[in-house]
Formats: sequence, C-alpha cells, structure tokens
Amino acid sequence: MNPRRIRILGTGLAVPERTVTDQEIERDLALPVGWVRKTGGVETRHWVTTETAAHLGARAARMALERAEVAATDLDLIISAGGTEMQPIPCTAVFVQRELGLGESGIPAFDVDATCLSFLMALDIASQFIDAGRYRRILVVSPDIASVGLNRNHKESYTILGDGAGAVVLGPSEETSSAILTARFNTWSSQAELCQIKGGGTRLYPTRYTPETHDDFLFEMDGMGSFRFVSQVIERFMDDLLRPVGRTIADIDYLVPHQASRLALELIVKKRLRIPSEKMIDVLAKYGNTIAASIPMALHEAILDGRIRRGHTLLLTGSSAGLSLGGVLLVY
Amino acid sequence: MNPRRIRILGTGLAVPERTVTDQEIERDLALPVGWVRKTGGVETRHWVTTETAAHLGARAARMALERAEVAATDLDLIISAGGTEMQPIPCTAVFVQRELGLGESGIPAFDVDATCLSFLMALDIASQFIDAGRYRRILVVSPDIASVGLNRNHKESYTILGDGAGAVVLGPSEETSSAILTARFNTWSSQAELCQIKGGGTRLYPTRYTPETHDDFLFEMDGMGSFRFVSQVIERFMDDLLRPVGRTIADIDYLVPHQASRLALELIVKKRLRIPSEKMIDVLAKYGNTIAASIPMALHEAILDGRIRRGHTLLLTGSSAGLSLGGVLLVY
Repeated sequence: MNPRRIRILGTGLAVPERTVTDQEIERDLALPVGWVRKTGGVETRHWVTTETAAHLGARAARMALERAEVAATDLDLIISAGGTEMQPIPCTAVFVQRELGLGESGIPAFDVDATCLSFLMALDIASQFIDAGRYRRILVVSPDIASVGLNRNHKESYTILGDGAGAVVLGPSEETSSAILTARFNTWSSQAELCQIKGGGTRLYPTRYTPETHDDFLFEMDGMGSFRFVSQVIERFMDDLLRPVGRTIADIDYLVPHQASRLALELIVKKRLRIPSEKMIDVLAKYGNTIAASIPMALHEAILDGRIRRGHTLLLTGSSAGLSLGGVLLVY
Repeated sequence: MNPRRIRILGTGLAVPERTVTDQEIERDLALPVGWVRKTGGVETRHWVTTETAAHLGARAARMALERAEVAATDLDLIISAGGTEMQPIPCTAVFVQRELGLGESGIPAFDVDATCLSFLMALDIASQFIDAGRYRRILVVSPDIASVGLNRNHKESYTILGDGAGAVVLGPSEETSSAILTARFNTWSSQAELCQIKGGGTRLYPTRYTPETHDDFLFEMDGMGSFRFVSQVIERFMDDLLRPVGRTIADIDYLVPHQASRLALELIVKKRLRIPSEKMIDVLAKYGNTIAASIPMALHEAILDGRIRRGHTLLLTGSSAGLSLGGVLLVY
C-alpha cells in the first residue's frame, strides 16, 4: 500500500454537560465504595440530559474546524462515524450538517458504522477520497450516546460507558510529511454475540418493546469472552497490519487505542503488544468508553496536552462488536 | 475526476417469500378497488414474515457471487449499504458475513448509511478502494426491510414500500471498458423532516416506546414536499454531475433510478430529465420502493432480462431522506 498524503488538520471533542462520578454510580447501584474505579477503571463519564448526537457532533466539529482553520462552508464531505444513530432515518450526518448551520449547503453527508471502529473506518474511507482528489476537506465526526441503552443490572458495562463526540478535519498533506501509512480491518462474525444490542432494528423493531422485552433493547457485553478472543488474534493482526509497510511496534511514538476497558488497555495493549505506559494514550478514567468517539477523543486530548506532535508516528487501533479489529498507522 | 476502472462482476436480488398484492392492501385498509395501483403505481411488493436482513442480504449476495464466478471466501471486503439496520449493534454487514458462512474468515465488514442512496454511496466508496489497489473483490449488499416500520394510517407510504435486497460483486475492470466515470452527492439538511423515522435511535430510544408514542417509531413522508424540493434542484444537480465529464443525458443508454414512487419516476425522471420510457428501468410495480435495495434490484432485473449489456453507459441515481440527491455514471 502506498502512503496516502493526508493530514489531520484539526481535532475536536465534546461531552455532555452532566458529569457522572464513580461515587454517584456506586451510591445509585448500592455498590461498595471504590468498586467502579477498581473494576472498570473509570472515574468520571458524561451522560446526556437534553443533548442529542447532533449537538455533541456539531460542537466537536466546530472545535476541529476552528483548530484546522477551515470554514464549515469549505467542507466537501461530512461523515458521521458513530456506533449509535440519532434516529433511524435520515442518517446522523444530516443532523450534524444542520446543526453546523449548513442546511442549505448541499455538502454530502452520510454515516459509516463499524461500531467502535466506525471512526477508523471513516478515516480510511476519507483518506482514499482525498488521495484520489475527489474531496479536499472532509469532516469525520463520531458522536456517540451510550447512556440511553445501558442495563443497570449489567454493572460491568453500565459503569464504564460514557457519551461524547470526537471529530477531525482532514485534507491533503501538501508540503508536510503527514500521511496514512497503512490500515487494516478484520471481522469475525462467529463472535457477533459477544457485544450487542439485539432490539431496535428491523429484527426486533421498537414497536415490539414491552416491559418483558426491555432488556433486549439494552447493551449487553461478554467482556471476558471478548477479551479472550482478542487475546488470541491480536498479535497476528498487528503483524499483518505493520509488516507490509516494514514497521514494528517499536517505530510507534504513540498508540491511541479505543478506550474499551481497563482490562483491554492493561492486558492487551500494554502487555500483549508490549506498549510502555508512556506511549499509550489513556483517557479511560476521565471519559469512560465512548464507543466510536473514544479514539478521536483520546487523539484530541493528547494533541492538546502536547504529547502528540507533528511528525509523530501514531497507531490508532481498537476492537469492536462484530467482533472486529482495526488499525490505522499514520504520521501526524 | 479520472475514470475508475471498476467492473460490476455480478449482481443479485432477493425478496421475502410473502407477496402482498394491491388487492390485499385495498381489502385490508378498506380502500376502493384500484386505488393502490392508481395512486402509488405498485402492484406487488414483498414483506417479511420470518426473514431477517441478513437472510435477504446473504441470498442476494450468493446470487451476485455466483454470477460473478467469485467464491465468497475470495471477498476482501463486505459493505452492507441499507437505509435500515438489522439490530443496533453490531452492524448489519457482520450478520451478512455470518449468514454467508464466513464467520471465521476475518473479511472486514461495515455499514454505510445514506438512507435510499446507501447503495450508491457504498459503490462510490468501494470503487475508490479498488482503484487504489486496496481491496480486489468487494461485496456491496443492500438488504432493506421497510415493512416493520410502516404506518397503516399513512396510506401513501404504506402502499408503496417493500422489502428486498440487491447485491453486487465488484472488482478491477482489467482488460475491459467497464469504469465508473463520475459520481456526485448533495445533502440539504434543511429538508431533513420531509422523510423520517423519528424514534428508534438515541434521541427517542426504543425503551421510551408506548402506545402513545407509537407513531413516532414509524416511517413518515411528505411525498409532495419531497417532490417539490427535488423538482427545484434536480436539473442543476444533473448538470453538476455530468458536465465535468463532458456527458449529457443523451449519452446514457439506461437510467436506473431509485424506485421512489410513480410520481418521482414519471414527473422527475421522465419529464424533468427528459428520459424516454424505454431508457428508464422501472420495477416499481413489481417490488415497490425497497429503500436502498431499490437501485441494485432494478439494475439486476435489467441485466437479467438482457436490456443492460456490457459497454452500456448507465446512470444510477435517486433521492433519499436527508434530503439528498446522488448519481453514479458508469460503463457496465
């Protein structure tokens, strides 16, 4: 694969106003003090009150546009890349477009869904479009609202998921070294049930919701099963991703992982992939697992605090429901 | 835009077993005999009983693979491009992958959603990937189930929508003239409410379903409003699509439109765009409006009956909720 000369021109982040602390959840679920932080590693997360995916997406997008010094009206394409959708029809990107004041602009807008890997997949798609000269300025925004679909009785997921949005504005890299070096995705649908929301689509339509089917419309996750499966395939996946471009884990300045869980970050990223703590961007304690927003939010934070700088080699990677693994290797 | 040397290697189609006739709907809704055919132009459509989007998608995909003489295991990528989703998590492509017996394959799988234009958007994305040498064999499948979300009290949409799936297998065109000549999409979110399902996503989550909110979870469409808006922008859109590649409507052998409604086909496609009946692929009476499946289903039918042949210039085009317009000009 030839490097695609793409540059992340700006990044942005938005979270709902309401912060939910570990103590609040422990009180609410009658859990022992310290349980949430100890088991899931999340201290605070944000949950929506009145905010929609469009609100969060547009706020993150405005910040990314400002930092990129790109006017919203100069965008050529808007991709919304969340694991959740705001409403079934039309797609979420339409509502983000409107919230950005672009309702009459005609700027094309569509959604990409690869659950927690939606952002990486959209980044890959967008970079192909830019590399081919098809579009010049692309907004990729991942607004995800997890909180409305959580199951209070499933403490493992209830305590780690948060709401938020991350965004990037992309353009050609021109006279800089910025590039996407390679990308890879794999999906093993034999593991589809490890992480799912069964109800809400056409198979179990919302009109079939009753108090009896309630739980079918909520998020369910076999954390240990996912962990076991990922453990089996992750080393091979990384080798398949990096080998074709002659890179190894040692060439990476920062790894920006999907903030899946404390277990995933510690045992898979750090231990299996042998990434030292100082090279792993970890914002799990602050935001929780925000589905597809998680990677661009972590990326934004590390750019903002000065760790990630131009010229750095970054590996953006994670797992998602599917079960899928994905990775994008880039020079920022 | 340079032509992308992509070839549609094979097409496929699948519909649910149950056929619903206009007479059956007229009896059911106590409508005058002939009302459905006269107002909406649909004679038969198929509605699911036990079939899922994965079942329909996999059946259409198997047919497309067979006609392409490509083994399912030789696919490099699976894109599910429907306006509806089978379940919220994971994405529909995962379930199509599994239904094709590829659960252990690792073949990447994700969804693209641009409502009724999802297939065209995915075709555009897939052709960029193939042109860049990133993937070689891509399945784009659009399985859409409309029937579960229809409102019996909204006769205009209830009588025209159907369920079905269309699929294509794509590859590089190699020694043939097959190519994608150009593509264009525009979205005007000021018109987002013309066609929507408000409930089912994170804004109005299924757990908020009650008999009182019932209608919010069903499809609603302002057919006349959509028609008026499209009428205003369609000629400019077509000019913007075709002019950059030096083509006009007269260069098109067949136009394969989204089978939106009788009104759209007659007054917009035939009259505004001045497409003679014999150049327009029209399967509306047989299948109804099958959302994103509509374009690949119409394409498949016209290839099967011998009208569309290799070397023909085709314009695949339509409108979708958003409101969006899209078009892909290709040499089959």
